[in-house]
Amino acid sequence: MENYIDFDKLEELVNTRNYRELRDILAGMNEVDIALFIESLPVEKATVTFRTLPKGLAADVFANFSSDTQEYIIGSITDQELAVIVEDLFVDDAVDMLEELPASVVKRVLKNATPDTRALINQFLQYPENSAGSIMTAEFTDLRHNMTVEDAIKHIRRTGEDRETVYTCYVIDERRILDGVVTVKDLLLSSDENSIDNIMDTEIISVTTLEDREDVAKLFAKYDLLSVPVVDHEGRLVGIVTVDDAVDVMEQEATEDFEKMAAMIPSEKPYLKTGVFTLAKNRIMWLLVLMISGMITGSILGRYEAAFAAMPLLVTFIPMLTDTGGNAGSQSSTLVIRGMAVSEISTKDLLAVMWKEIRVSVLVGVVLSAVNFVRLAVTYPGNEMVALTVALTLFATVVLAKTIGGILPIIAKLVKADPAIMAAPLITTVVDAFSLVIYFSIAERLLHL
Amino acid sequence: MENYIDFDKLEELVNTRNYRELRDILAGMNEVDIALFIESLPVEKATVTFRTLPKGLAADVFANFSSDTQEYIIGSITDQELAVIVEDLFVDDAVDMLEELPASVVKRVLKNATPDTRALINQFLQYPENSAGSIMTAEFTDLRHNMTVEDAIKHIRRTGEDRETVYTCYVIDERRILDGVVTVKDLLLSSDENSIDNIMDTEIISVTTLEDREDVAKLFAKYDLLSVPVVDHEGRLVGIVTVDDAVDVMEQEATEDFEKMAAMIPSEKPYLKTGVFTLAKNRIMWLLVLMISGMITGSILGRYEAAFAAMPLLVTFIPMLTDTGGNAGSQSSTLVIRGMAVSEISTKDLLAVMWKEIRVSVLVGVVLSAVNFVRLAVTYPGNEMVALTVALTLFATVVLAKTIGGILPIIAKLVKADPAIMAAPLITTVVDAFSLVIYFSIAERLLHL
Repeated sequence: MENYIDFDKLEELVNTRNYRELRDILAGMNEVDIALFIESLPVEKATVTFRTLPKGLAADVFANFSSDTQEYIIGSITDQELAVIVEDLFVDDAVDMLEELPASVVKRVLKNATPDTRALINQFLQYPENSAGSIMTAEFTDLRHNMTVEDAIKHIRRTGEDRETVYTCYVIDERRILDGVVTVKDLLLSSDENSIDNIMDTEIISVTTLEDREDVAKLFAKYDLLSVPVVDHEGRLVGIVTVDDAVDVMEQEATEDFEKMAAMIPSEKPYLKTGVFTLAKNRIMWLLVLMISGMITGSILGRYEAAFAAMPLLVTFIPMLTDTGGNAGSQSSTLVIRGMAVSEISTKDLLAVMWKEIRVSVLVGVVLSAVNFVRLAVTYPGNEMVALTVALTLFATVVLAKTIGGILPIIAKLVKADPAIMAAPLITTVVDAFSLVIYFSIAERLLHL
Repeated sequence: MENYIDFDKLEELVNTRNYRELRDILAGMNEVDIALFIESLPVEKATVTFRTLPKGLAADVFANFSSDTQEYIIGSITDQELAVIVEDLFVDDAVDMLEELPASVVKRVLKNATPDTRALINQFLQYPENSAGSIMTAEFTDLRHNMTVEDAIKHIRRTGEDRETVYTCYVIDERRILDGVVTVKDLLLSSDENSIDNIMDTEIISVTTLEDREDVAKLFAKYDLLSVPVVDHEGRLVGIVTVDDAVDVMEQEATEDFEKMAAMIPSEKPYLKTGVFTLAKNRIMWLLVLMISGMITGSILGRYEAAFAAMPLLVTFIPMLTDTGGNAGSQSSTLVIRGMAVSEISTKDLLAVMWKEIRVSVLVGVVLSAVNFVRLAVTYPGNEMVALTVALTLFATVVLAKTIGGILPIIAKLVKADPAIMAAPLITTVVDAFSLVIYFSIAERLLHL
């Protein structure tokens, strides 16, 4: 990666109050890097540095701050400075910010916005969490049917400054119903006198305000889009979602799946910024549920006390059997859960997945059992029946674990539950119980316990 | 999502050979949907339908086929038809395709390309797998220093047709050294007579051809980019990576992490298209490694045979203890691995993570142990010392599992190993051994076994 930024040198300029040079360097930097730099400073210097930023840049940098920094900065600037920033923010960034701030700060921000901005922000704050409405922005370029290409280009040149993206323009009628889409590429490659009606694409990929943001992000991945228009239930254009926000959603949704699949309640903030109590709370619930299931497994095991009292050696294979069962099951469930998350597997594939998992698990089970049998036969000569018991159990456990692991996530989806909870921890607990029953049932027969 | 496509109606048109109407409908559809539709047809009808596509659209649809379909279609069209498609494909799509096809088919494709295209494709095929070079495309818009805004817009209007994206233009000198970046938005918002030199941004975010594609994708997420220029070691512009390809990389890298974290070798293809033998092969290696570690745990357990022969009740708590330890550890390792994947946690946070995990695990451990103690004291009255043994072990296991789970992925990164392999399965196996040793050591003391 090129152009590494020397934060130390910049901090030196802050410390020596060389604000003019600092301002010149910051003005040439990317807003993401400026935000990172300001957040790396001690708080009292952060505000001073933020204030040196040229007007146009301040809001862009502000949008890239964490909510803690935003709150701090808001608290240390004047109402007038705040008003400028609020007007310059894109509405989606303003809404993201307000959703995280305490009520008193939100009040002060809204008080300093113009009535139009305030009305728009309030409208956007109404959309449900995780909906398309909650991630869209109102800064898009709209065109009218009767424009020519030349008119459209002039319109963009006149209004483009405030627009989050100018590259896809939306053609609306007088009631704001979305009728077509024109890209700037289409405009540039058409002759000036051509009419917008002629070149617009009427096969529009759009979403409604209440659509799940995860589905919106999937549209971007599927169709390689730069932005998607958002319409209300009457087909009126109310906003757009841009690809950078879709990228953030994809990243967040993947993180949530990782968390759910490791038996946690997804957290709102990055790990290092989440408090100890919140982290503990997010983890305890599932650990308790799984611990109680583990106790059930334990009581199943209790039914075979006579067996392992008679032959304690059997106990030493329990960790290997249950771990392998858990691992085998979680391999299958992970592939299927992820396959559904990226739309490669759907509920209609239930039987195909099951049949595939049965075949794979037979192959895997045969290899693992054979290795195990040989190892035990060598380690415990004369105990071939024990070796056979363990090998048979291992085979049955692997087949069962993989089949259950493959189909449970699909069944979860069928009953409208979240497939991600059918991941390693739950599968492991389910498979543990089964594999112990199989183990001791086989042991009782083969070893006459 | 709007405009759902009626595949049945389209297939009816194929079956009744109503190719004219079919062609008209397809011409208005998105290339992704057309590709999905053609792939849903029986193979012999797929080629016929593909041939009805208008010339400009055929290559776009072709780029969206799976490699199996591409191979089939190549095998059933003429050399002349193939030549047209190869020339129309963007070079990154052509390279993606050739990397998947058998050598004989690659040969036929290259034979039908023009010498220029062939040379470009051959050059691109040289870049290492997973490098920026392997995902870049050569179709970008380059501008020269001495152009005015008006010249630049004219240049784009003349050459834009073949360009994968026209929205970011790259300013190069006569040796093709990259000197600046101009967006179409910059051009549109400047006056015609302004010079490119004046408005170009010289703080360029660029990558080199050998840079890891995952790092390239992270740049897009960090800076909200639409494209990134790729330069060789002398700073000459050789290609660009576009955001749609970065989105694909992010999705693939997340999938690989899911697979590695569930103890699998990542697969190249989607689950449903991967053969049974490949799936089995990807899973067996790690299961074998973990099974052998499980045996080691088993032999540790063997040292305490006397203890559980004397008190078989102790055995029934083993699944609960090891499962809870595994789950507690995988919660921590998952958060840290994912945190590092999205650059929220770095190796310098080792001590911060450790300290956080210790505090979280003490909280979690106290709650779980207390619940457990109460439950056991109620279920097994008179056996309070057993309840205490289990509760103390559970507490120690949770603290140990979370601390190990939190720091092992960071240590892996420090020694340049892949943090994702330090996920649930390995942590579980490590923690199992420790927790059993703790369990029986406490049991021997408290219960005088």
